[in-house]
Amino acid sequence: MESLEELKGRIEALRSLFSDVKLMTDDETPAETASSFSSTMSDEVKDSNPYSRLMALKRMGIVQNYEKIRDYTVAIVGVGGVGSVTAEMLTRCGIGKLLLFDYDKVELANMNRMFYMPQQAGTYKVEAAAKTLNFINPTVDIKSFNMNITTVENYETFQKELLHGSLTGGRVDLVLSCVDNYEGRMTINQACNELGLPWFESGVSENAVSGHIQFINPGETACFACAPPLIVASSVDEKTLKKDGVCAASLPTTMAIVAGFLVQNVLKKLLNFGEVSHYLGYNAMKDHFPRMKLLPNTSCSDTNCIKQQEEYKEKVANQVVDESLKVSEKESAVVHEDNIYGIELVHDGAASKDDDYSAGDGVKYSLPQTSSNVEGPVVSDTNQSVDDLRNVMNNLNNL
Amino acid sequence: MESLEELKGRIEALRSLFSDVKLMTDDETPAETASSFSSTMSDEVKDSNPYSRLMALKRMGIVQNYEKIRDYTVAIVGVGGVGSVTAEMLTRCGIGKLLLFDYDKVELANMNRMFYMPQQAGTYKVEAAAKTLNFINPTVDIKSFNMNITTVENYETFQKELLHGSLTGGRVDLVLSCVDNYEGRMTINQACNELGLPWFESGVSENAVSGHIQFINPGETACFACAPPLIVASSVDEKTLKKDGVCAASLPTTMAIVAGFLVQNVLKKLLNFGEVSHYLGYNAMKDHFPRMKLLPNTSCSDTNCIKQQEEYKEKVANQVVDESLKVSEKESAVVHEDNIYGIELVHDGAASKDDDYSAGDGVKYSLPQTSSNVEGPVVSDTNQSVDDLRNVMNNLNNL
Repeated sequence: MESLEELKGRIEALRSLFSDVKLMTDDETPAETASSFSSTMSDEVKDSNPYSRLMALKRMGIVQNYEKIRDYTVAIVGVGGVGSVTAEMLTRCGIGKLLLFDYDKVELANMNRMFYMPQQAGTYKVEAAAKTLNFINPTVDIKSFNMNITTVENYETFQKELLHGSLTGGRVDLVLSCVDNYEGRMTINQACNELGLPWFESGVSENAVSGHIQFINPGETACFACAPPLIVASSVDEKTLKKDGVCAASLPTTMAIVAGFLVQNVLKKLLNFGEVSHYLGYNAMKDHFPRMKLLPNTSCSDTNCIKQQEEYKEKVANQVVDESLKVSEKESAVVHEDNIYGIELVHDGAASKDDDYSAGDGVKYSLPQTSSNVEGPVVSDTNQSVDDLRNVMNNLNNL
Repeated sequence: MESLEELKGRIEALRSLFSDVKLMTDDETPAETASSFSSTMSDEVKDSNPYSRLMALKRMGIVQNYEKIRDYTVAIVGVGGVGSVTAEMLTRCGIGKLLLFDYDKVELANMNRMFYMPQQAGTYKVEAAAKTLNFINPTVDIKSFNMNITTVENYETFQKELLHGSLTGGRVDLVLSCVDNYEGRMTINQACNELGLPWFESGVSENAVSGHIQFINPGETACFACAPPLIVASSVDEKTLKKDGVCAASLPTTMAIVAGFLVQNVLKKLLNFGEVSHYLGYNAMKDHFPRMKLLPNTSCSDTNCIKQQEEYKEKVANQVVDESLKVSEKESAVVHEDNIYGIELVHDGAASKDDDYSAGDGVKYSLPQTSSNVEGPVVSDTNQSVDDLRNVMNNLNNL
């Protein structure tokens, strides 16, 4: 039989072992790690500064005020294959605050996508995500909502959080849709139209090899009810999909690429650098990346969209519209008046001509530049019905 | 003072607590998790099957034999911002075997990129990576090499592993370069030219907002010594860069997007679906994605490249060349004979015309299609020096 001293020794050994491994799973972040992440961003170049490579963006002339990111609040709806990676990227970038909404649990069937770990199977996604994110950067304020935003009572909470959930108790700066269903998207659309909040929609097709992101600024661009791109991208009306029993394919690659495009455009929007894409698609089979712009539908079924359109028109007339959101004259030049949705492909080659970057003098982008209507292929220009346009977009997205 | 019984009770309590949290950090994977991952891939649609969403790629008609992935071995050189995400993606996809090469340690300054966790700071990257990957999918055979491949003796080990490191003791199927320096890339290039191994090069610019991947098949495409794209992409000759003291900017978005492009093309190559891009660039500022093809330099300084070129020509003459690697006639049609590197931009819009996908009937890609030389902008066609071509590529990449 062991003596009291031996037992005490074993307790100490177990305690020490426990405190080592505890670091990875505990809700509290180890003091050592937490102290490396301060709430202000240092630009000091040293291995122990987690922000040195981000603050270097200023030295490189890409971003003027990177540390402004600490002031922003972003709401992410859906923390599955795209949303969880989106949340991790924003956390690693040092965003101020994240609001996470989801009601699913982690399953082993999710392990073919990034972020979640097998031992998290069975736990709620928002809880598992918040724990991991807090561990990655404990200075990011993570608030998780284990709920379905599409029910009437939860919708109220959702709206309230969008209005008062920021770091300063005000409106969130952006909403990101990373859900995999039609109702979720329509709910976000409704809330953002009502509140006049800018948001990004994202999606990945059921066959796992295409995806898209779309920036929606109520009143200025098409809203999700004006011309839903996901129905289009997946070639399937989502309303007809039963969620149970459906086994859509998925790949970690496509999901992470879409999350990457999403967060990159969020950074460009929030930190005011580069060009924010209005619609960016990804076709993995051909490495093809369609870009387009969707203007709002003047007969949109969402009355708040119509209201926002009117307000936006007034703002433009009064020239008080946010310059960073404004469709550039160059871009709008190729939108025909009778192209009711203003669907337009922004051609990669063409896009690279109008820039302030050092376009190669020795390089001829041999696209004709004689008239504006060949600059970007314009999708039709006559009285097409909504269904025709959906078919067109459908085909475009399948290119 | 505590009684013997009380102390025994505390030991049990600690033991139980310890075994809960131990799961996350232990080298051994919990039996429960391991049993869910079998070495054969089930296509059963259930939440506990980690492969159900991958095997669904077969049902969706994307991949014919997804389970073939279990037979492949891929070597990844460099497990930093791009390489670690690459390794995680391949692990989640259920690759057969990974060989990981690196000699760096994890630093807190790496936390602005995906994959590594703060508590791994100070540990060797290959060791930290192997542990996490083994936890994600314990059936993937991970072999890590904590070494710099550019030294003479390590180069021998590296070559030996490329020749005999596969699951069956044979050649690896692909080599992926995810290093951040010139010497590393030239070493991989040398080894692959010598052994005739196909590989992918990848890179992210110092300002964090552009990147690329490139597929190199010795003899068929330009090798890294023929026309190094990284020198070009970063506008800086890497040889002149001192690694110490340099604080390049980096973003988790760009790194994950480049890793996503890389692994997506690895999957297309190994599992024979879609089109493998020869060169795919990413410009984050404009969401611009240049694609091009680089033919080998007939006066390349690497004698093994010249040898491979001769062998490839013979193979083509004898028509025994791998059809999946062959440059399509359509593509080569626009390469001028005196464009010595065969540098060619594959135009996104143009590329999407020649496919077997349902191109939208209602859509007019209004690019002129009258002659072949406007289909994809061809970079020059006369006697340019290597330096001129480098400048051209430099400018192209900065577009």
